[in-house]
Order: sequence, then structure tokens, then C-alpha cells
Amino acid sequence: MSYRTTAFVAAFCMLASAASLCAETTEERLRRGDEVVRSLNAGSSQPTLEGLRAEFPFLADAITGYALGDVWARPVLDARTRQLAAVAAFAALGHRPFMKIHAGYALNAGVKEEELKEIVYLTTVHAGFPRAIEAAQTLSELFKERAQKPGAAK
Amino acid sequence: MSYRTTAFVAAFCMLASAASLCAETTEERLRRGDEVVRSLNAGSSQPTLEGLRAEFPFLADAITGYALGDVWARPVLDARTRQLAAVAAFAALGHRPFMKIHAGYALNAGVKEEELKEIVYLTTVHAGFPRAIEAAQTLSELFKERAQKPGAAK
Amino acid sequence: MSYRTTAFVAAFCMLASAASLCAETTEERLRRGDEVVRSLNAGSSQPTLEGLRAEFPFLADAITGYALGDVWARPVLDARTRQLAAVAAFAALGHRPFMKIHAGYALNAGVKEEELKEIVYLTTVHAGFPRAIEAAQTLSELFKERAQKPGAAK
Amino acid sequence: MSYRTTAFVAAFCMLASAASLCAETTEERLRRGDEVVRSLNAGSSQPTLEGLRAEFPFLADAITGYALGDVWARPVLDARTRQLAAVAAFAALGHRPFMKIHAGYALNAGVKEEELKEIVYLTTVHAGFPRAIEAAQTLSELFKERAQKPGAAK
Amino acid sequence: MSYRTTAFVAAFCMLASAASLCAETTEERLRRGDEVVRSLNAGSSQPTLEGLRAEFPFLADAITGYALGDVWARPVLDARTRQLAAVAAFAALGHRPFMKIHAGYALNAGVKEEELKEIVYLTTVHAGFPRAIEAAQTLSELFKERAQKPGAAK
Amino acid sequence: MSYRTTAFVAAFCMLASAASLCAETTEERLRRGDEVVRSLNAGSSQPTLEGLRAEFPFLADAITGYALGDVWARPVLDARTRQLAAVAAFAALGHRPFMKIHAGYALNAGVKEEELKEIVYLTTVHAGFPRAIEAAQTLSELFKERAQKPGAAK
Repeated sequence: MSYRTTAFVAAFCMLASAASLCAETTEERLRRGDEVVRSLNAGSSQPTLEGLRAEFPFLADAITGYALGDVWARPVLDARTRQLAAVAAFAALGHRPFMKIHAGYALNAGVKEEELKEIVYLTTVHAGFPRAIEAAQTLSELFKERAQKPGAAK
Repeated sequence: MSYRTTAFVAAFCMLASAASLCAETTEERLRRGDEVVRSLNAGSSQPTLEGLRAEFPFLADAITGYALGDVWARPVLDARTRQLAAVAAFAALGHRPFMKIHAGYALNAGVKEEELKEIVYLTTVHAGFPRAIEAAQTLSELFKERAQKPGAAK
Repeated sequence: MSYRTTAFVAAFCMLASAASLCAETTEERLRRGDEVVRSLNAGSSQPTLEGLRAEFPFLADAITGYALGDVWARPVLDARTRQLAAVAAFAALGHRPFMKIHAGYALNAGVKEEELKEIVYLTTVHAGFPRAIEAAQTLSELFKERAQKPGAAK
Repeated sequence: MSYRTTAFVAAFCMLASAASLCAETTEERLRRGDEVVRSLNAGSSQPTLEGLRAEFPFLADAITGYALGDVWARPVLDARTRQLAAVAAFAALGHRPFMKIHAGYALNAGVKEEELKEIVYLTTVHAGFPRAIEAAQTLSELFKERAQKPGAAK
Repeated sequence: MSYRTTAFVAAFCMLASAASLCAETTEERLRRGDEVVRSLNAGSSQPTLEGLRAEFPFLADAITGYALGDVWARPVLDARTRQLAAVAAFAALGHRPFMKIHAGYALNAGVKEEELKEIVYLTTVHAGFPRAIEAAQTLSELFKERAQKPGAAK
Repeated sequence: MSYRTTAFVAAFCMLASAASLCAETTEERLRRGDEVVRSLNAGSSQPTLEGLRAEFPFLADAITGYALGDVWARPVLDARTRQLAAVAAFAALGHRPFMKIHAGYALNAGVKEEELKEIVYLTTVHAGFPRAIEAAQTLSELFKERAQKPGAAK
């Protein structure tokens, strides 16, 4: 495939509003994603993500560059709302390890345990009682783990 | 089955904190649920719900009494956050008609169109691009329908 | 929100057929749910449910009052049919811990092991071979656990 | 691949209990499947199935030979219970056209409309309110269609 | 049910093209399925499948006769493509143990580890990042297990 | 958030192997994605994608830049295998409109109709008969639409 300039993208990138997006390098996107994960995770990198980097480098770069650097870095929603929405989606889908990670980020961003419990209660309506019960058990594990780590946000 | 008083519930309902919950009648729960749906839906009842009442009375009562009267009436989360979380869950699950109804309630509660679009963008991460694209198409339909109804919140 | 009497619910609760439903208190619903779980679980409470009560009181009440007290206590279907339907749904959805609990209740209600195996075979059609194989493994665990507990229904 | 006799299957097919299974031809399985679909569908073939036969012959044969001839023809569960279990699974999975077909078969087998409605109510617990509402809407369509066809079981 | 010859199947089985299909016995289908699993699994039977045989004989026969003997034995797709398609489907559905088994079969059939990683990357688009991350973790476990077994294809 | 250079990304981007990735601009990624979609879609842009651009610009850019420009442009898998894997995943998940689009791309890349039908047959094993039947109906619609458009690959 010859990556010739296509007319569509050339026109788009000449728009003043698109200029800074189009000029951004992947290094800048990766840096921003790395910043985002540290801001969510109390200054540390994310162990699940780092565990993937050696063997699945493209996936690690996609998480850092796209999921964190492009999506999670967007403005409009504040961090609390974004995290509660993510927890609601992961609870409904039954993605327990991801619900746990993002519920921890929510607590770091100032969400209260009581607010996370409300997402569990909503899940009975969205997706039924088994999904809600598993979400409750997931939060319960998280709350215990954080109670044992002094210094973690609560 | 003889519905004799079981020791567990009797003890629970003697707690001062549980007294008002235990004494509440189903009529009160249904009234509260009816209030909730009207507060979400700009003063009107919900057509999908009313369409079920004659043929599926238990389901209609469960929606009004449990889903709306018990869950949606809870305190802790404000209406905006609850609606954004519900939209995120319905988008991730691919429940398009329910995403549309609750995105409309979100707009009624003061959520901006731009905020709903952010939920779509998060959905690419939670559940992949097909679910996000369908969520975008669902919002697009909703925005068009509301643009054609003068007086609807925007 | 002022929980004023809405016209709709007031009219509904004046119907002779709705009177006993509307007058019921949540204490009565919780008692009935507690009765239901004990009738399903050979006289005992349910450990998963009780594990949730302290930390997620609303969820525990929703399970006891709504899922068990309202839905599972309904007439029309006998206990065997209701349990086989629940097992079929949980098998198809891949909700293994809930399939196991409800398959145990089915055995308590007189369902034969052979009948539960048929639900596994149907699952190959409903949801594919992986879901069916996991359902078979779940039943296998259950059968072994009950074989080791003298006195359990078989 | 040379389809040589493998030791395992040869030994299995020498068991007295496996002899009739092993000797059965695919023609016999297809005939049995065709019988099953006609017994479920008031004597007629199934239009969705027949629509697939010309373009997807293997799929049509797999439905007739395996899903109907092997699985649905099994003993142990009576037709009413099998159909209610299938309806519960399809409702929970959101497979509306298949829920509709099998709910129709259930009515043909003597299941009452009231019993099918109970499956909808259970679905609120298994899979949440959106799935249950869609299942209710699906039954509602089915009941209307059958009410308009004189002679259909009700 | 009297399994009388139905006109439809009788006519079908008189077609020259259907004759060999119709005449095949279940023993032949089981033999072919057993051949298929051994060709996929480096000459051995499949432990998960054999674990089911005593307690769930119909399921084991359905896997051997239908899933392996009928579906997996089909011509048209080569083994590499069939296995990559199966891995993509299992990754998207979150069926980790089955993804692992079939990724192992893929390696046995000559698929490269790098090609399996590409399926993980596609999964971010099909089904979101949590499913892709779990698929990566599943492959990682598989690669480690095979690295420790001398003689396994890599 | 101040997007300061983080040590991790800075070190990564100094690796010779990462240099060209890190230096790439988003304009280059968008151009490549636009090339990819045209190569898949017989030289045209994709109507579903273009329909999103005005109202959901971030989503359109994520599809073009990430899904197409990063993921679909990757080497290792040839276009035929990638499209068959995508069709298998979309069929298993029940994403009919996306299965249709990607099955069309598969035909454009030289995949035969017979090969796509095999994916449907595999879907009975991966995800059950309802998903396979819907996948068959989706292919059937696609084949008809292409048969009516002279010049389309078949």
C-alpha cells in the first residue's frame, strides 16, 4: 500500500480547528496517555498495562496512546463522572478486573464508596441481579485491599 | 407456603434505621416511582412503560415500584450522574431503545449533548467500535427527534 | 421531590384487584422473600446473599424483597419449572455461580440430575458449545459437593 | 485426512448401550428432526429454517439433524418444560426472533400465555429490565399474531 | 412420536448429491470427529472433552459427532484460517478456556505466535479493550505453558 | 494536567525500533486509515463512517486513525485472513451491520462466498444456532445486494 495523501484527510487537516490534532505526533499521544494513567493511579503506572508491554507491544501502545491518551484525556466530562460511567459499563458487562481498576481510580478521583455502591444498585436494573451481585463482590474486594494499604485514598 | 414471620426479618425491622423502610406500603413505592418517571420525562408518563401495563401488569408494577420507586429514587447520586451512568451501561450492552430513553432523560436533567457524545467515545474502550457506532447512531436519532419537537430540552 | 399522590397510582390502588398488592408493606415482602429462600435452600438462608447484607444493604433488600419476595414467590409456575428455566437462562448467559445455586435449589425441589443435564444439552443450541461445556462443568462440581454432604437431596 | 477407525470410537460403538446410536444414519436423524419441527409447529415446516435451505444447506441440515433431531428429540424433559426453558434462555440472551418462534411452539404444546409471562418476569432477575421489556414486547406481538389466525392454539 | 419417513427428507436423500451424507452412520461421524481432534491436538485426545464423557455422554458425543465430525471436518477453509477465525470469535466473546485450546490447535497447525497476537489487536476493535487484554493474558499463559513442554509446536 | 515528558515514554521513543512510530503524526495515521478503508471498499469511502463525521468527529477520527490506520493497517495477517477473523467475531457477537460491511470487504479482497458460509457454520459451535442463523440471513442480504450491483466483486 502506498500511503499517498488522500484528498479527504488533506482537506480536513487544512481546517484551522483540526490543525493541532493533525500535527500531533504519536510520542505526544503516548506521553499524554502516560500522564493520564499516573493521574488516575495515584502517580504510579498500571501493573496490568505494564505486564502486557513486552509481549504485546502494540496493545500496550494502543492502551496508552488511544484509550488513555486520546479517549481518557478528553475534556468535557470531569474525572469523577467519567470513572462512574466506566464502572457502570464494566459492571453491566461483567468485566470484573476492569471494574475493579476503574473503581479504584474513581476513589482516587474523590468518588465516595457510597457512590460506587449506587452503581451496583443501578446494575440490577441495567443487567440483572447476577451482574449486580458480582459487581458488589468486586467492590468489596477492592475496599478490603485499600483498607489494608495505608495511604490509599478511601 | 405459609408466610409466617421469620426471625431474621422481624429482627431487621425492629432496627430504628430500618423502621421507615419496613413500614412503607407498595402503594407508596408505586407513587414514588410514578413521581420519578414524571420528573425524568418532563412531566409525562413513559409510553413504553404504559404500553406494558395492560398485558404485563406485574412487569409494569416492577418497573414503577422497584426500578423507579426503589432504585432510581435513591439519594447519593444526582440525576445527571445517574443518567450518564445508565447511558454508559446501555451503550455498552447494546440496549439501544433504553439508551435512547435514558439519554433523553439525561438531556431533561440538564446534561449537554456534548456530554452524551463523550459516553459514546468511552464506549469504544469499554465495548468496541460497533457498540460505540450504534450508540452514536442512537443519539443522532434522539437529537433529531428533539430538534423537531419545540419545547423539548436540548 | 415531594412524593405527592399521583392520580394514576391512586386510581390503580382503588381497584379491588390491586387493593391487597397496594396495602402490602415492605416488611411483608421481605418476610415472604426470606420464606422463599429458605424453601428453596432446604431451610437455610443463602450464604452469598447474607455475605452482601452488611456492606450492600440495599442490594440484599432488593434480592430478598424484589427478586425473591416479589418474583420468585409468584404463583403460576411450579418450583421445578421455575428453577429449570432459571438454570437454562443462567447457563446461556454464562453466570456460573448463579447457575450452581439455582441448580442446587432445583435438586431440592425434586428436579432430577438427569433433567439438569438436559438443560446443558439445550444450551449447545441456545448459546453454543463453550457455554454448554462450562454449564456441564458447573453441574459436575455441584453434584460432587452434594455427594459429599450426607442428607442433601440428590 | 484418512478417516481410519480410531480405537476409541470402535470400543464405544461395541457397547450394547451405544449400538443403536452408532448404527443410526444421518437420514434417520434428519427424518426425526423433521418430525420434531412438525410436532412443534402444528404440522408445518418452519419458514425460517426452510428459507435457509437453498443457500446454507449445511446449516439447514445441522438444524434439522443436530438441533432438532438430536437435541430437541431427546427424552427426559417433556415438551412444555423444554420450551419454557428455551424461552427463558432466548429472553435472557435477547434473541427475539427465536424467543418468538419457541414461545409459539410452547403455546402449541399446551403452555398457557400466563406461563410465558412468568418467564418475562423471571428475566428481570436473570438479565435486567431492558431484556425483560423486550421479551414482553415479543410475546405481545406473538399473542396478537395468533389472535388474528383462527385455528391457532391459544 | 412415530418416526415415520417424512416426504421432505425422503426426497432430499434421493438426490445424488445428498446420498453419501444421508447414508453416513453416527459411528462414522464419531470416528471422523475423533480423527479431527487428534489432528488438531498433536495426536492426543482433548482432556476437557474426555472429562465430560462419563457424566455428560450426550454432550461428549455432540462435540465429537457434530462440532468436530460435522463442522470442524468440513472442507473449504484450511486449518490455519479456521483456527484463527475460532480464536477471534472466542476472544471477542470472552471464552478464555476455549480461546486457549483453539489457539494451541492453531500453533499446532502452523500458525505463528505473531499471527495470534494480531487477533488480540483486532479484538480491541471488535469488542473493546477489556476483552483484548484478557485475550492477551490468555495467549501469554498458553505461550508459557508450551515453552515449558519440550516437543510442542511453537 | 501539564503534559510534561514522562520518563517512560521518552526512553521508549529513543529506541531505534520505536523511532518511526513515535515520530508519526496524526495526519499520517488518518491518511493511512483513509487508504485502508478505500482499499477495503473498492476505492470508496465508507458511508456509515462518513455519516458519523459531522456529529461525532472524535469517533470518526478514532475509526480512521486508530481502528483503520493503526489496527487494520498492520502487517502480519493478509487481508483475507483478517476479514474472515473479523466476520467470525462479528457473527459471534451478533453485530449484524458490521458483519455485513466486513463480509463485503472480504469479498472485495478475494474471499469466496463459500468461505463466508463456513464462518456461519463455525458460529453454530462458537455462539449457538440463533447467532448462526442471523449471520446466514445477513450474508444472504449482502449476496443479494451485490448481485444487483453490476461490477461488484462476487
